[in-house]
Amino acid sequence: MKEYNVAILGATGAVGTRMIDQLAKSTVPVKSLKLLASAKSAGKKLSFKGQEITVEEAVPEAFDDVDLVLASAGGAVSKKLLPEAVKRGAVCVDNTSAFRMNPDVPLVVPEVNEDALKDHKGIIANPNCSTIQMVVALAPVFRKYGLKQIIVSTYQAASGAGQSALNEFYKQTQQFLDGKNMDANILPTAGDKKHYPLAFNLLPQIDVFEDDGYSHEEWKMIHETKKIMLNDMDAKDIKVTATCVRVPVPIAHGESVYFEVEDSSATKEDIQKCIADGDGVTLQDNPSNQVYPQPINAVGNRETYVGRVRPDNENPGAFNMWVVADNLLKGAAWNTVENAERLVEHDLARVPKDYFKA
Amino acid sequence: MKEYNVAILGATGAVGTRMIDQLAKSTVPVKSLKLLASAKSAGKKLSFKGQEITVEEAVPEAFDDVDLVLASAGGAVSKKLLPEAVKRGAVCVDNTSAFRMNPDVPLVVPEVNEDALKDHKGIIANPNCSTIQMVVALAPVFRKYGLKQIIVSTYQAASGAGQSALNEFYKQTQQFLDGKNMDANILPTAGDKKHYPLAFNLLPQIDVFEDDGYSHEEWKMIHETKKIMLNDMDAKDIKVTATCVRVPVPIAHGESVYFEVEDSSATKEDIQKCIADGDGVTLQDNPSNQVYPQPINAVGNRETYVGRVRPDNENPGAFNMWVVADNLLKGAAWNTVENAERLVEHDLARVPKDYFKA
Repeated sequence: MKEYNVAILGATGAVGTRMIDQLAKSTVPVKSLKLLASAKSAGKKLSFKGQEITVEEAVPEAFDDVDLVLASAGGAVSKKLLPEAVKRGAVCVDNTSAFRMNPDVPLVVPEVNEDALKDHKGIIANPNCSTIQMVVALAPVFRKYGLKQIIVSTYQAASGAGQSALNEFYKQTQQFLDGKNMDANILPTAGDKKHYPLAFNLLPQIDVFEDDGYSHEEWKMIHETKKIMLNDMDAKDIKVTATCVRVPVPIAHGESVYFEVEDSSATKEDIQKCIADGDGVTLQDNPSNQVYPQPINAVGNRETYVGRVRPDNENPGAFNMWVVADNLLKGAAWNTVENAERLVEHDLARVPKDYFKA
Repeated sequence: MKEYNVAILGATGAVGTRMIDQLAKSTVPVKSLKLLASAKSAGKKLSFKGQEITVEEAVPEAFDDVDLVLASAGGAVSKKLLPEAVKRGAVCVDNTSAFRMNPDVPLVVPEVNEDALKDHKGIIANPNCSTIQMVVALAPVFRKYGLKQIIVSTYQAASGAGQSALNEFYKQTQQFLDGKNMDANILPTAGDKKHYPLAFNLLPQIDVFEDDGYSHEEWKMIHETKKIMLNDMDAKDIKVTATCVRVPVPIAHGESVYFEVEDSSATKEDIQKCIADGDGVTLQDNPSNQVYPQPINAVGNRETYVGRVRPDNENPGAFNMWVVADNLLKGAAWNTVENAERLVEHDLARVPKDYFKA
């Protein structure tokens, strides 16, 4: 069996450390593992399958002899280094937004559009966390009953903004309980001018705003969903709109998803069965026994959880549901490693001749 | 000017104490104020306009000589005592769900359907907190552009479940930060069998579940909205569906509201202007300057705040918006006192001959 030299780029972050863990639990045959990060983090030691690995600085030459790269060090780092890795023969699965909308880069959630992997030119993009769990939940419904419209409102965890945002959130929480002023220097997003407390609050801003008033996170949910489900980021076949809100939860995103199917004869039981049979989804839907997805139960798991499925009683063919998943695992580290597993399984972890160039 | 003998039923609770405060700040000319509560709370002393008042036990005879009752002591107490108060000549504004769907009881948000007050038979019902802030935000849009459909996802604060739930939530938060197990004995709702932590979590259950899988809170949002806007709890003219979620926030509910207007020529600027001109609403909508409603800014205010107004780019005439209000004030105590103000203003604080009987 072929074994792979793997590198994790951004190995010391909230997602990177989980990539190490998910890779250790995966079916990818790892010959060697390189952990790469900024110069600041070089020299740190991290553990993989009981073996201690020293973090190295992420420079182009670090990718010599690497077969497979898992990247989560920010969009700017991916933009600069992944073409260098591809040039050196490494296939890259990128968790940043750097290449998601590039027509030469497949945007893949294995349960939904695994086939797109075969068209890669060296880089495969991982979608945004909030998109992934929604399309995993909707894919079986889309296949069986078709989809006309999706209206989603998200309840997104602090860790989606990174480890430092999560630390800030915990600090704010204790400050509030102690009757002190809350320090806010990162959230809602490090990339914008003003910062507000998340603890005991709700922030209807994730990422920066587009000119039309949608946040970039909302833009991502709309266009990534279309690219994943319809292979066209601007496809009109499914209408999608989104409202993204950061909530005072550390890990695991919730989503209230309203969707309308093409086959309006579909019943609640049809939709529940279809989702229960879907890949990567667990149906937790028994209201009379108070069974429904909750973030605290989803943390640490690879699955996407769905509950509260019920028809809009006044709009035949339309349904509401509630979706929860660990944003750092299925929303990031696990989906990346899962893409790597599928590449290996289908012998696609090879850079083609007409490879991706910056 | 006529002066009124007022009684507050449930004066010691999270809403009751705020009713005392809102009444003190209102235009209602108060001749005397009686504070009523359970036998357990009788004897406590509370302050009204600098005057100390001893809480008395809520018994039918307590309403002798009372002109106006503001009630928030739970549905069972209202069911039992308000007909007794009406019989004794007191007009009651009830904040519980006891009489909301009774055809002889107007369900009133003054900014939306003040006219319904004139049909009262001694009892006026206050809607559910999550309904109130939504209809205040939508009323000006409904009047000017018509409404075809409303799809709402709520982000509801712990205090909506009462003071003891709020106390439990704070306790859980500190327990989690201290690495301890979280005690859960009240939330999601005292009326159901199982209890889960709200701190650092999301609970897609508010109140108990109906047989069709909707929670009773969701049922209330659907049918109260129709009764307030269309004067018929089962009206089909506006389709309404709701997903209600409890979030780890102490006070002030958020709502992601998707709505479709009849006049699909309405632009984003039209909707924003219409809301900005509405009664009881403040538009906070400037994404490029990161201005949008947040719970921590709404606490203690009577207004409903609206922001993030934007069209669904693929569905002409449909819009998303984000609505925040203090659930204990506009969602409860202030709406009750505001109804009392309007009754006094229109000389309607009198029980008619064909008064409400249990």
